[in-house]
Amino acid sequence: MAKPDKAKRGIPAKADFNAWYPSIVEIADLVDKRYPIKGMDVWKPYGWKTMSLIDGLTRDQMDRTGHEEYNFPLLVPEDLLEKENRLVSLLKKSREEGVDPSELRMEEEDTGFKKEVYWVKHAGENNLDVPMFLRPTSETPMYTLFSLWIRSHSDLPLKTFQIVNTFRYETKQTRSFIRVREIHFFEAHTAHKDQAGADAQIEEDAQIVQNLLHDLCFPAIVSKRPVWDTFPGAWFTTAVDIMMPNGRTLQVATYHHYKDQWARAFDVKYEDSEGNSQFCHQTTFGMSERMLGAVVGVHGDDAGLIFPPKVAPIQVVLMPIASHIDENVIVKVNSMAKDLKDAGFRVKIDDRDLRPGAKHYHWEIKGVPLRLELGPRDLAEDKFIMSLRTGGKEEFPTSSLIESVKDSLSLIESHLRSRSQELMDSKISKFPGISKESGNWQLLGEIKDGMVYELAFDGNDSDAEIIEKSTGLAFLGDCVDPYETPQPCAITGRMTTRKQYLARMY
Amino acid sequence: MAKPDKAKRGIPAKADFNAWYPSIVEIADLVDKRYPIKGMDVWKPYGWKTMSLIDGLTRDQMDRTGHEEYNFPLLVPEDLLEKENRLVSLLKKSREEGVDPSELRMEEEDTGFKKEVYWVKHAGENNLDVPMFLRPTSETPMYTLFSLWIRSHSDLPLKTFQIVNTFRYETKQTRSFIRVREIHFFEAHTAHKDQAGADAQIEEDAQIVQNLLHDLCFPAIVSKRPVWDTFPGAWFTTAVDIMMPNGRTLQVATYHHYKDQWARAFDVKYEDSEGNSQFCHQTTFGMSERMLGAVVGVHGDDAGLIFPPKVAPIQVVLMPIASHIDENVIVKVNSMAKDLKDAGFRVKIDDRDLRPGAKHYHWEIKGVPLRLELGPRDLAEDKFIMSLRTGGKEEFPTSSLIESVKDSLSLIESHLRSRSQELMDSKISKFPGISKESGNWQLLGEIKDGMVYELAFDGNDSDAEIIEKSTGLAFLGDCVDPYETPQPCAITGRMTTRKQYLARMY
Repeated sequence: MAKPDKAKRGIPAKADFNAWYPSIVEIADLVDKRYPIKGMDVWKPYGWKTMSLIDGLTRDQMDRTGHEEYNFPLLVPEDLLEKENRLVSLLKKSREEGVDPSELRMEEEDTGFKKEVYWVKHAGENNLDVPMFLRPTSETPMYTLFSLWIRSHSDLPLKTFQIVNTFRYETKQTRSFIRVREIHFFEAHTAHKDQAGADAQIEEDAQIVQNLLHDLCFPAIVSKRPVWDTFPGAWFTTAVDIMMPNGRTLQVATYHHYKDQWARAFDVKYEDSEGNSQFCHQTTFGMSERMLGAVVGVHGDDAGLIFPPKVAPIQVVLMPIASHIDENVIVKVNSMAKDLKDAGFRVKIDDRDLRPGAKHYHWEIKGVPLRLELGPRDLAEDKFIMSLRTGGKEEFPTSSLIESVKDSLSLIESHLRSRSQELMDSKISKFPGISKESGNWQLLGEIKDGMVYELAFDGNDSDAEIIEKSTGLAFLGDCVDPYETPQPCAITGRMTTRKQYLARMY
Repeated sequence: MAKPDKAKRGIPAKADFNAWYPSIVEIADLVDKRYPIKGMDVWKPYGWKTMSLIDGLTRDQMDRTGHEEYNFPLLVPEDLLEKENRLVSLLKKSREEGVDPSELRMEEEDTGFKKEVYWVKHAGENNLDVPMFLRPTSETPMYTLFSLWIRSHSDLPLKTFQIVNTFRYETKQTRSFIRVREIHFFEAHTAHKDQAGADAQIEEDAQIVQNLLHDLCFPAIVSKRPVWDTFPGAWFTTAVDIMMPNGRTLQVATYHHYKDQWARAFDVKYEDSEGNSQFCHQTTFGMSERMLGAVVGVHGDDAGLIFPPKVAPIQVVLMPIASHIDENVIVKVNSMAKDLKDAGFRVKIDDRDLRPGAKHYHWEIKGVPLRLELGPRDLAEDKFIMSLRTGGKEEFPTSSLIESVKDSLSLIESHLRSRSQELMDSKISKFPGISKESGNWQLLGEIKDGMVYELAFDGNDSDAEIIEKSTGLAFLGDCVDPYETPQPCAITGRMTTRKQYLARMY
């Protein structure tokens, strides 16, 4: 039987990532982009199921760490946003003037948040007295209630999360999962007695992300974002960036230490054990459907998706071969599928009347990790054939079904982890250096498109600006894994362990 | 130890249902109503978990019946609504003129749907070219895509569902779960080759609702709604009403047979096996957080909630007694909790340093079905005490832990089912009859507040109007369980098996 031409699948080569990505999300039936609003896709069952499995992993982590699930209203009254605006202006001023924020008074100012939201000013035939907006994120509505819920130190820590739809009026080009206007969003919000409590929370968040990245089989760059890229209202922001195949980085998670800054704006206070009123210290941790975008982008290949086993809607597809010759083949395949289901695997039997080749291509596109085949001869010999979506094919005795599926899924995870590590390594170069020649800063080598550059950097904001302008790239911030031995800063020459990356970000 | 005064819990007596219901939803910590938008509550973890368990039961039913889960965008462009408006006007005209809808042309008319939606006309600082609204339900966005997805008879039946937030600009008084402005909503939408396919779907929907009602432990009145109460665009609507303790009925589910009416408006067509183009026949099936409202309202009592075991976030609370005397008590309680968890039960250990009485009252309010106590003497005698939230207390040997918990949960389900059946029966009376005296219709007996009336009815719309005006009640429609032997119609005297109910609906 001849192999159908790969081009017939209609998938561009993955080397042309910017064409491959938007094609595969539709060809694999994750979403439909024909909904008549730009940047709002329809989730098809296969995409939604995968996202729900990712949410399931997140919920497991929340459960393990004692976070409880809430669900807040989508709409936020405009007057709450004004509190937030005042906070953001105050922090901006405090940074500019080098004054502690607690010494400044909040003043009203339009900080531009309003430019990114969808407004509801009409309901039915009425103009609303107080306009409302669709949540872009939930600090404002949540902290309004936190200030009612938290009374004493015994109410702390308060560890909350929700998984909801959020909205952002994107003016940039939209891309499924990566830049959309209705966002499937996870957000955890916590309140603590003091800064140490919030510090510990940030460490817990870091570990949660590492657990998820392990399940999803990719490494990441974790950085404390530069001040100018810190979330408004945050003391500092740590961000998790995934290397995409085109060398652009995709921010998939952030966690923010708010200190007591939001608490002051929203009056989130508690009475300590001595009866004194104290402001809480808070953190936020956000992730979104971008995690699925990273799964699609990093792991897929020319033949289609490759899903990490933990989030594959179908982990094993079972294909009876030549069952018209021996109907016991179907009986055996059904019983194997039942055994696998009972053992907790997600399986599907493909007994459609199609050539095996056509079925293979179908399930390759869908990224199903394992394909299990059994025909009359296999049945007679008490064995089956298993093909891994990451390559390779092996015979196993039917008696070892559960064990061999388990081991093969684990092997696929290792394949994916080493491939994605290689991808990341191959996209990172040493920064070529920069020096001042007759008053102008000159790069000492080429900055290639689709590469991320690593450098030791200990300069100030204007040094950073020089490097960003010269390269056309952006600093991801201080990597949380600094150099073990000090290196000379790329611009000041001072010895430093501060490791940084320059990247083109999504 | 003296029993604390029940009034201290702050729960009004359930006999005063209209005071009890709004109190208990907050006292039991299901929602917080202090969010600054009327009719939009914050779901607290206990309420959200219960709702998620109800959703889980629904998803199991969807899975069993081959429906797949989608997720559509929240926002709908106004121009799609206009298609819907034209359909609704056409059906209205067809009814008024007694003409088949397929013989009429669609014309634009404002049908009033616009009066119930929230509008998004602004994003950032821009006025949108095409205004959008927040979905009140998803026919319009879904069928726009159905017309792209369905090509041939092999694409049918298409069985879809989603669980999402929908919005309705309510002007009536709001009530948690029962009448809210952001609604946690389930909707299934299907497309079939012909009317028979849609008929079969309606029967499947009816069975799904019965399965859910069984799990939630209440009976219901199922009726084909009168024409004037049929969902716009539907051929007929079947509704499921739950009897609330104040004698008002709460519509918790509806399923609609659309015939090919929506398909004509949205061009949902397929090519049949002879190559002819045909319109699909469609159905919709909707449920919402009202199901939780019914659980709260029907089962609770003066002491708080009573959750049916299938949707109780905590099924068994384990209370170590006098563990300061014997620390083996804690060890044993921990091991019992682990055994129960491993057997699939949802359990919680309450080892707080509080008097047992205070703990009892707490878990009574929360509606936890079983309370399990074990103290030093029980430990010595290898037994424990189990109290049922519906009443009764028994000793069991620890060796029968799993079995006795299982049996006791089952017993609670029977208690709840018989109580809710009694509640319903006690609120239904025979209609006293009506007759014309000197040109005026006169009721032949009293219509009591808080009662539902059953009658044989075979009159026309104006007969129905006479009865509705005389009683101040509304017809629920033709009950799907008609009389076995014909009865005289309350107004025409004609013999009929058509059983109807008159009720005050939420």
